[in-house]
Formats: sequence, structure tokens, C-alpha cells
Amino acid sequence: MIEPDAPGAPNRLTATEAAALISAGRLSSSALVQSCLDHIATREPVVHAWANLNPAAAMAQARARDAEAALGALHGIPVAVKDVIDVAGVPTGMGSPIYDGYVPFADAASVAALRSAGAVILGKTVTAEFAGVSPGPTTHPAAPDRTPGGSSSGSAAAVADHMVPVALGTQTGGSIIRPAAFCGVVGFKPSFGTINRAGLKFAAESFDTIGMMARDVDDVALVWRALVGTATAPLGTPETPPRLLVFRGHQWDRAAPETRAAIERTVCRLRDRGVGIEELPVPAGFAELSNARVVINGYERARSLAWEAHHHAERLSGAMLRVVTDGWTYSYDDYVAAIRLAETWRMRMADLFGGHDAILAAAVNGEAPRGLASTGDASFQEVWSLLHLPAITLPLAAGPSGLPVGVQLVGRRLDDSRLLELAKWVLDPCKSPSSFESDAGSS
Amino acid sequence: MIEPDAPGAPNRLTATEAAALISAGRLSSSALVQSCLDHIATREPVVHAWANLNPAAAMAQARARDAEAALGALHGIPVAVKDVIDVAGVPTGMGSPIYDGYVPFADAASVAALRSAGAVILGKTVTAEFAGVSPGPTTHPAAPDRTPGGSSSGSAAAVADHMVPVALGTQTGGSIIRPAAFCGVVGFKPSFGTINRAGLKFAAESFDTIGMMARDVDDVALVWRALVGTATAPLGTPETPPRLLVFRGHQWDRAAPETRAAIERTVCRLRDRGVGIEELPVPAGFAELSNARVVINGYERARSLAWEAHHHAERLSGAMLRVVTDGWTYSYDDYVAAIRLAETWRMRMADLFGGHDAILAAAVNGEAPRGLASTGDASFQEVWSLLHLPAITLPLAAGPSGLPVGVQLVGRRLDDSRLLELAKWVLDPCKSPSSFESDAGSS
Repeated sequence: MIEPDAPGAPNRLTATEAAALISAGRLSSSALVQSCLDHIATREPVVHAWANLNPAAAMAQARARDAEAALGALHGIPVAVKDVIDVAGVPTGMGSPIYDGYVPFADAASVAALRSAGAVILGKTVTAEFAGVSPGPTTHPAAPDRTPGGSSSGSAAAVADHMVPVALGTQTGGSIIRPAAFCGVVGFKPSFGTINRAGLKFAAESFDTIGMMARDVDDVALVWRALVGTATAPLGTPETPPRLLVFRGHQWDRAAPETRAAIERTVCRLRDRGVGIEELPVPAGFAELSNARVVINGYERARSLAWEAHHHAERLSGAMLRVVTDGWTYSYDDYVAAIRLAETWRMRMADLFGGHDAILAAAVNGEAPRGLASTGDASFQEVWSLLHLPAITLPLAAGPSGLPVGVQLVGRRLDDSRLLELAKWVLDPCKSPSSFESDAGSS
Repeated sequence: MIEPDAPGAPNRLTATEAAALISAGRLSSSALVQSCLDHIATREPVVHAWANLNPAAAMAQARARDAEAALGALHGIPVAVKDVIDVAGVPTGMGSPIYDGYVPFADAASVAALRSAGAVILGKTVTAEFAGVSPGPTTHPAAPDRTPGGSSSGSAAAVADHMVPVALGTQTGGSIIRPAAFCGVVGFKPSFGTINRAGLKFAAESFDTIGMMARDVDDVALVWRALVGTATAPLGTPETPPRLLVFRGHQWDRAAPETRAAIERTVCRLRDRGVGIEELPVPAGFAELSNARVVINGYERARSLAWEAHHHAERLSGAMLRVVTDGWTYSYDDYVAAIRLAETWRMRMADLFGGHDAILAAAVNGEAPRGLASTGDASFQEVWSLLHLPAITLPLAAGPSGLPVGVQLVGRRLDDSRLLELAKWVLDPCKSPSSFESDAGSS
């Protein structure tokens, strides 16, 4: 028997690898899920990634998958679900004591889609309180004295720690990209509005987006395709060298040295591979989006938590109570002005991209900070959430403590397939059969 | 004692009138709610507007409001809530047997906002199955052999029948405007995205909008303001004569004679009052939006009902099962192409409005049709839902059977206050202190 988490143990497989083995009859879902559960049993006392885990129920799903014909591309694959997304019959805690005793009646649309593709819902992963800023107990898998980022803390930590190959997260400001970048996994926030949100507890509904984390881009694409319900063709390779913009942005001066180094090194490497990269200067007025985001976020969070604040204010964290209280101070006119500004910039982005495929930008401001009281700085993620653009973070660099520092690629709106293809090409130069290093001149 | 529903009985008051009396100590919430309940007891066996009504619980709320200082502008006012919106502790049936036994844990954001303003949640009103096309038992209050429209059937019928002064509804295609127009009440669908949807069961989340019905525009504005949380100043009068576009549209040829007459007569009357009205010709390509709407609606409904279809297909209506089944046949690429088209047209609408305040358009195709098997034709409402524009229907005309035929005003995106002001001026020429009939020449 292979020890859990040993090289070659099922829990270390990617979802794509495991799905191929299951499909070929060389691995059972039961063995895969058991391997994940065994590894969780060892590591959970340190990582605290799970809000709800029921090993017997997970194994029952796995055995059912083993006993039937393949339902879809995720047949038998364990998936973790952030604890703000409903799973029928499983307590869903929202990272808040207010939801003690809440058991959803139905699966969220995203969970139902995963099940239809054959997934095993392994368990619920820790979220910051209502997908906001007050963290749960999750630690960084590589440095237990540091935050894993948030609010999708448990999803990022569980995937990074090989507890599960793939997980659902949600992003309102930076809640997928930041924890994925800190934990050294791939995190993908699709174009706003394209992943069905029925059964998601809203934070700020103008931004809330369901996405996924995995240890490579193929796995992200595998889960994304199950959610959008499209064909399962593997990711292609770009036919011509990508054309990128690099956005150092209005916050470059305050970026950590490792963040700047991650961008500069990525630019050099990609240029060496034949990628054309131009600077995207900070557009005039772009910085005003930060304030619009604050207004929309506060106005909407106050309203989506109106019941909680009205009946259970004493069980909200101080930080969340401030967000909600501040949110009620914005007038409808403030809110509408902020929406107008956001909508104007969403339109303008198509022109700013020009003929380029994606924007290369910092994902996080340095490696994961010490301490568990904060999930880190959202300022390098949130503008892309406001702009409704797809974004992916890739584990391309490390900081002074050897911890991961992600680099972000931001795609054109609704061009998510192209972004995933590009991200794979950027991340996997050795695995890709053809890079443009050798043939850039001939294209 | 005034008999329920006699002229001057509390249940016949508008919410604005009742709120003023309650505030002046001349009416109690208990008396108002009791009057509504008494009238409901008489009429419900014919109208079937209610999915869940608990008189004792409603009276307990009313007595609590009577015993405390005013919470807000709706203090003590009964409000009905469409049965796809969560009310904590109250069964919420979604118009489907699948949700038998579902009792929400929390109030929807919209319900919490009403409660914060002092409202009494009177009960849950009948919805078509999952806010779709398969109707519940509600009848037209003025003609029990006819549909009241849908999917917000119970909300429109209850308000029209003086069972409750105001009600929440939702619109995905035409589910507020159509039943309000058939039942002869004012129905308002705000700008998409501005009324918080936490706790709403999604139909098609790119369109789903919470709105309200009432017997006059002031009441619509009263509830709207409680939901957006803005100041409670009464609606003003336009300072200059409004400038309107009239859109006869690509479906004019198939419009019922009473629908055409309603538009033509409204145009004449408004011109007599000094309103400038220009024709908005059908823009090239506008008709393609119908197909985009079908794709987005089907794709999203299939996903938001994935759990229901997966586990309880036999308890979906045949019509809904077809919608869901068809929805899964659209590819992600079909869906993205439809979203792109919708987003392009949303941008373009600002130019099409030009300097005009609103578009005058048909609300419904004729008066409410006979029979309860269908809620009527959505084709005159749904394009404005797709375009994310605010829309209001006003009971300005009647059909050959003497039943109401609404006329629709469609506002500029996010300019909802202006639309309400304009709607009041159009509907209440006698009540308004100044119309432009007398002074149009001097402005």
C-alpha cells in the first residue's frame, strides 16, 4: 500500500490524472477519496481547512460512483466546496455562528452541476465570515503561523496541501486569487455572471463570482467546464504567440519587492518565449474605481446581511458590523453613481485591451503575511472583480521566506477559454509540446 | 364599524394614506391588518392569491408595531411577498411541490429591508412554478375565469382586490408588468441589479429583478424607497414637460386592438398636456434580442434548477421540464454570444434614448385572456428586462370586456426616481397640483 501523501499516492494526483485512471479502471473513487481522507486526518489538526467533513458520507458517494457508469468528466473525483455555497443536507455555516443549525434544502446550482458530472462532494471548506474579512482558523499549509489568505481560505489550503485536488471558491474582492496566490495553487475567477449563483450566500452581488482552485490549469479547466456545461476537449495551445499587456498600475510604488520581482521576471521569461508585451499605462481616472468598489461593496453587503444585522448583530464580528454599518451610510444616489462609473469602465476595457490577449498583473502584495488575524491585502485583486473580467493566478514566483507569490493574468470579458489556454501555456512550458521559443521567428 | 372593503374601510386605503393615519395615531396597524384579513377571508375562496397566510402571526406583528415607536416609513403597513422570496420561519413553496416542507432560515434581504422600515409581512402570494410559466390557482379578481397574469400572480391579484395595499413581485421576462397590467394596478420593475436579491430563488439570474405592485405610484415609490434605503421625500412633479419616445415596435402588427388603442390614446392625451413625443423606430437588429433572451433564459434556468431536475424531475411541470431540458442544449458559446449581444444593446440604449426621459410602449398584448392554463404573452415585457431598464405599468386603458390594459413607461437605466416621478405625473393628472396643460406655452 502506498502511504497517504507519499509520491504517487492517490491524493497527490491531479483531478485530470485521477479521472483518467478511474476511467481506465486503474483507480477507484473509493481509493482516491480514502487517500484524501487519510491525508486530511494527518494534516487537519494543523491546517484547519474544513468547516464540515463527513468521511462516511464522502465514502458512500465514492462507492456509489464506483458502482455505476461514468456520469461525466468528474466521475469519482472529490471536490471541496466553500462554506458559503449550499450543499443539500450538509450544514453550511457561512463562517458565522449565526448559521449554526442551518442545513440547506437544496444543492446550489454549482454543486448540482458538479454532481451531474460525477463529482464526490468531499466536504465544506472554511470561509472567512460571510466571505468577508474576518478569518476562520485555517493556516497556511507551508507556514502555520501565516494566513492562507481569504476569504476562500480552506479551499486554497486544502488544495495546496493535497487534501483534495480541486475546490470551489468565491471572489467578491480578491477571495479566490489572493488565497490561491499565497498558497501556491492556480486560482480562477471566471467572467462575472457566467457561473450560476443559485444557492450562493451573497456578499456583494454585483461582484460575487464562483470560481475554482486546483494545482494545475488543466484541473481548473476541468471543473470550469463541468460548471458551464460545455464540451470537455482538453485545452489547446495558442496558435500564435500571445500578445500581453503588463499593468504595473497605480499601486506599484507600494508593491512588495517580491511582487515587483515576480512581474519583472515573468515579463523577461515570456519575452524570451516570443511573447509581445506592451505596457498598459494607468488610464486617467482608473484609481477612482477603488472608491466606487468600496461604495458598491458596502451598500450591497449591508443589504445582503440585513436580516443578520437586524436579528443577530451581537454575533457579527466587529469588522463585519462596521462594514454593514458603513454600508447603510451610502445613499442610493452614491450607489448609483458608483455603478455608473463601474459600468463605464467595463465598457472601456475592451478598447484598453486592444488586440492583446490578456493583462499581466500582480496577484498579491508579497507572500502571505504572518499571523491569522487578517487574510491580507485585497488591493491587487479587487479592481478586476469590479471590472467583471476573468482572472487567474499562477504560482510563478516565491518570496523571501520561500513562500509562493502568484502572478495574475486577466482576460478579456467572456473570453475565459482563451485565458485558460494562455495560462496553461504560461505555466507549463516544459509540459507543452510546443512553446514559441523555438519557432517564434517562423510564425 | 366599517364593513371590510366598504368605501373608507382600512383595507381600501393606499399604503401612503394608511401610513399617514398610523403616524397621526388615527389608525392602528392591528385595525388595518384585521381589515385586510377580513376581506381576504371573504374573497380568497375565489381569488386564491395566497400561498401561505397565517392570520395570527400577521396580527402578532401588527400588535408589536402598534406597541412601539415607528421604525420607518412602512410602520404597521401590511406587505405581501411573492412565494419565491424567503421569509424566515415561513414556508416558501416556489410554486412547486418539490419545496413542500422548505422553511427558510433567514429573511431575504428585501424582506429584512421591509421589516426594518416597520412593515408587517402579511403572507406569501402565489407564484407560477419557480417564477416561470406554469400557473398556480390564482384567478383574475375582476373575472375569475381569466388569468391574473404571472408569474407574480398572487401579488397582482391581492393588490388589485384590496387584500393588501402593496406586494413584492419578481420579473425575469414579464412577471411583474404583465400581471399588474392585467389586474389594473401599478407594477414597477426597477433597474436590474439595484434591489438586493439575497434570499431570492433564482430563475434566470441575468434578468431576475425584485419589484413591487401597488394601487398608485406613490405606494410603489414608498416600498421602492424602503428597499433601496433612500430618503422618503414624496415624489416631485417634473419641472419641465417630459420628453417621451413612443415605441410601437416590431410586434405592433400582432398587437391586440385594445393594446394599440391604449398607446394611441395615451399619446394623444400626453400631447394635449404638452408632452413632446417622438417615434422610436425599431432599431436594426433589435428583433434578434428575442432569441438572445431565449438562450440566456434557458441556459440559466436549466442551471438554477439543476438540483430540482436531477433529484425531482417527476415533480416539475412538463412545461418547466422542457425549459430545463432545452436549456441544457445551449452551449456555453451560444450563451456567451447571447450575453455579448445583450451587453451591446444595453450600452446602445443610452444613445437611443437621446434627450428623452422615457419610452412609452405596450405593456401587454390585450386584456387578460380567458382560462387559467397560461399567464399570457410575455413578448411585450421581456425585452426591457433583458435591457436592464426600469419599467412601470400604469392602468390607463381597458379592453373590450372592460378589463384593464396597462401602458408601460420604460426609463433610462438607473434613472428610476425620474421614471417614478414621470409615472405619477402621467397617472394622476387630476391629483397633481400642476400639470403642463395650462402652462406648457410658458415653459
